[in-house]
Amino acid sequence: MERHFSKLLDQLNGRLVTMGTTAEAMIDKSVQALVERKGELIQEVYRLEGQVNQSQLDIDEEALRLLATQQPMAADLRFLVAAMKINGELERIGDQAVNICENTEFLLQHPPLKPLIDLPLMADAARKMLRESLDCFVRRDALEAKSVIMEDDRVDEFKDQILRELLTYMMSEPSTIPRAMSLVLISRNLERIADHAVNIGEEVIYMIEGKDVRHPKK
Amino acid sequence: MERHFSKLLDQLNGRLVTMGTTAEAMIDKSVQALVERKGELIQEVYRLEGQVNQSQLDIDEEALRLLATQQPMAADLRFLVAAMKINGELERIGDQAVNICENTEFLLQHPPLKPLIDLPLMADAARKMLRESLDCFVRRDALEAKSVIMEDDRVDEFKDQILRELLTYMMSEPSTIPRAMSLVLISRNLERIADHAVNIGEEVIYMIEGKDVRHPKK
Repeated sequence: MERHFSKLLDQLNGRLVTMGTTAEAMIDKSVQALVERKGELIQEVYRLEGQVNQSQLDIDEEALRLLATQQPMAADLRFLVAAMKINGELERIGDQAVNICENTEFLLQHPPLKPLIDLPLMADAARKMLRESLDCFVRRDALEAKSVIMEDDRVDEFKDQILRELLTYMMSEPSTIPRAMSLVLISRNLERIADHAVNIGEEVIYMIEGKDVRHPKK
Repeated sequence: MERHFSKLLDQLNGRLVTMGTTAEAMIDKSVQALVERKGELIQEVYRLEGQVNQSQLDIDEEALRLLATQQPMAADLRFLVAAMKINGELERIGDQAVNICENTEFLLQHPPLKPLIDLPLMADAARKMLRESLDCFVRRDALEAKSVIMEDDRVDEFKDQILRELLTYMMSEPSTIPRAMSLVLISRNLERIADHAVNIGEEVIYMIEGKDVRHPKK
């Protein structure tokens, strides 16, 4: 029985990792659609969103079933609660990739405003945070999860830098305003992806150490 | 024992409602700071954020303790899982109110761009959704929760309308761009508050009906 339960937990773990990989692919493809102006990738992102949404339902259902039937204690209970929360974060990351695509659809109808340099770097940084936070989850590595959380500052710096640069474009040439606005909104989607990766990191730490690291007292 | 558990669930329920009321006050005060140009309310929002964050930690801890010690089944288990999720939504609503304040701090350093009409209406619509979704949680009203979810379309219409209007300002008078950008970002914070209220409505339906209403097949 114990062994059977442990196998079910492993399976759930594997499903979350697969979902995370899909969410990561959604970020990749949405940013690639934008930077390389490949509109055909947008449909691919929408298709993957269906997979991520289905995973969310399946994982929640399975975690709840295990909570109900196995009455887990201590570390297993914390794992199941963390799994449900990480599940929610991954689904929302998928939503952000879809939002990036919506603004990209508009941008691809117009000539490029400027070569995109910082935005793909910001996307790389956010996607790396997601990858690392999921690795920490798989390896049960709280120390590394703490360093993922620290990386959020770099993403925020990109966000501020991108806003400043795009405001300059807008003010010097009003015809750029709608495109620049779309790029600002995309940078905000990337910021939120990084925030979700931070949340995953916090959940991992909680799962391992049984210690809540959210909202540390100042 | 059964009766004792039911009392503990009631207490948890009450704590979530109190937290929801605080989150609602944060929305109110952040929008009031912006619309009535009352900078002193911003500190009040930051103070309330501390309360909301503390509530999140306390509620998660209590829900996890009840999961571990009471081994709840069926409706009680779904209530505890819903409580942990709604808890997360409320904390993020608080974050959005803080973001509104950050942009408001900038706006209050400059003369008003225009009389704000749609933005407070959008805020009212989003706050009403939060209020109603929490009422549904308290009254265990799945039918009403479904109608809350429908209201999100109205908030999205406000969002589009506000963006269109502010783009017009930006393009006709470039000096308005930084202020108009801040107002666009505030409208996105309100959009996300409404999204969180939708999530709460979905959790309520799941808790009552044991049926997942997220991601309906098209």
